[in-house]
Amino acid sequence: MDTNSVSPLPPPEAPLAMMEGEKTPPGSASGNEMPPPPDEKRYEEDSENAWNCGSWFEYMLIVILSTILLVGVLVLTLFWILFYRGGYSWSENRQLQFNLHPTLMVAGFVTLSGFSILLYRLCRCLKHIYVKLLHMFFHACAIPCVALGFLAVFESHNLSDPPKPHFYSMHTWLGLVTMGMFVLQFVIGFFSFLVLLCCENRTYKCRSTMVPIHASFGLVNFMLAIATCITGLIENERQVPGEVLMNTRNSEIEHYIVNSLGIVFVAIAIIVTVAVRRSNAPATAKVYVTERI
Amino acid sequence: MDTNSVSPLPPPEAPLAMMEGEKTPPGSASGNEMPPPPDEKRYEEDSENAWNCGSWFEYMLIVILSTILLVGVLVLTLFWILFYRGGYSWSENRQLQFNLHPTLMVAGFVTLSGFSILLYRLCRCLKHIYVKLLHMFFHACAIPCVALGFLAVFESHNLSDPPKPHFYSMHTWLGLVTMGMFVLQFVIGFFSFLVLLCCENRTYKCRSTMVPIHASFGLVNFMLAIATCITGLIENERQVPGEVLMNTRNSEIEHYIVNSLGIVFVAIAIIVTVAVRRSNAPATAKVYVTERI
Repeated sequence: MDTNSVSPLPPPEAPLAMMEGEKTPPGSASGNEMPPPPDEKRYEEDSENAWNCGSWFEYMLIVILSTILLVGVLVLTLFWILFYRGGYSWSENRQLQFNLHPTLMVAGFVTLSGFSILLYRLCRCLKHIYVKLLHMFFHACAIPCVALGFLAVFESHNLSDPPKPHFYSMHTWLGLVTMGMFVLQFVIGFFSFLVLLCCENRTYKCRSTMVPIHASFGLVNFMLAIATCITGLIENERQVPGEVLMNTRNSEIEHYIVNSLGIVFVAIAIIVTVAVRRSNAPATAKVYVTERI
Repeated sequence: MDTNSVSPLPPPEAPLAMMEGEKTPPGSASGNEMPPPPDEKRYEEDSENAWNCGSWFEYMLIVILSTILLVGVLVLTLFWILFYRGGYSWSENRQLQFNLHPTLMVAGFVTLSGFSILLYRLCRCLKHIYVKLLHMFFHACAIPCVALGFLAVFESHNLSDPPKPHFYSMHTWLGLVTMGMFVLQFVIGFFSFLVLLCCENRTYKCRSTMVPIHASFGLVNFMLAIATCITGLIENERQVPGEVLMNTRNSEIEHYIVNSLGIVFVAIAIIVTVAVRRSNAPATAKVYVTERI
């Protein structure tokens, strides 16, 4: 942490245009507005530190662990639904239709969004515009999952007898906020970081202001999604009044599966926060991370 | 966000010894090890930017909003327990003894810990050692709250007929991890940042390595505490089997109070993350924040 050591992370003042790969910042064209940052040389000179063992080890550990957790949570959800909740169906059986809800929401809000966030921070070998497009692609894939997952639970509420009220429990409140924020983030991100690229130099200031806001709210949105998943698990487990848990061996195993799912959700929240905050990937590709987060 | 503007935040490479107030970094005594950081001058020259309107407004907004939320969540919990759950008692009535648990845990893990984290990042007018001591003092105050809160629920489980199993639900699993991490963080923080100060120069490297770890795990611990509170609220609301909610007007109001509590918890998680990450307090006191977070 002394000043001689070079961290792969740029200081907060690092120009944001560095994100655009090898391009020089637009401001530097005018000569006066944006002198080359004092830290730039240090990064370029630093060839052995960027690939040092510790940061590579941490980088690989985060990549492998997060992949296992993000895929694992989806597999565990599928296992839980298929073996303990009777599988899936659309509009035949209220309960089987409901089962689509947790699976699709976990796929959209946790697995796909998680990969999208992580690849944006950890993918250092591609040009930045491709990373951006991949980031958008993963989030775009999450949209049909979330929409179908929402429809599934909405219809299953309507089909139950008597119809269950919508947006009553804490899970539904949190879920509504999460979905609203997700749509806002997607639309604003799409326009700010892809559409506004059409006149790049003029929108530089605007886009650079948006980056930390988009990144902060993205992380908050992901944490909200995790909180919503956990509340949903608990509410679902305790949904049936009068059902006393720990009665049969089967329900006890299911209880432990659901608890494990909750713990995996928390582990994902921790690893994504750590990955996004540290992001000490080897910086040889000269793709600078956006900003401190 | 261009390189000419000076952010009140130091770059990640800023020497950690700056935290110790006006002292020079220990390493600089030897002359070679640690040259004065290239960014230091920029910070000192920047008198008008450090006090600019935007950052002051954001700083005051975060301070006021977080104070309202952290005090408000405790007041709301007290209101809920006193008016809807029958108040408090120790070892007379199982339910009244249980009521101590949410109140004390919210006081310890949310209100006191939240203030402790925030004052460490936002308090710029005191010498750093006093900020550290205050940070420790608030966390130390949380310990008896947490211990009593844990005892209350442990005894209330034992007293129920039949005795409830310990560490069965997701709330209890998360709570156990949160408490374990809290104790570890407190002990490691106490030894690393207060006891090791006795031979300051020798332990400089060790302490500077510990700072980002302590800060990251501190934030993770706080998020875990929030998740535990939310799961606890839902599990408690749905605890009584056979009780159908929305029956009486009273229970419906209570349901909305509990949901509001959950939303306030989420709002606290967001404001603390934002405050800790941005921490753009006016930097005139020359107390540098520890590191990017």
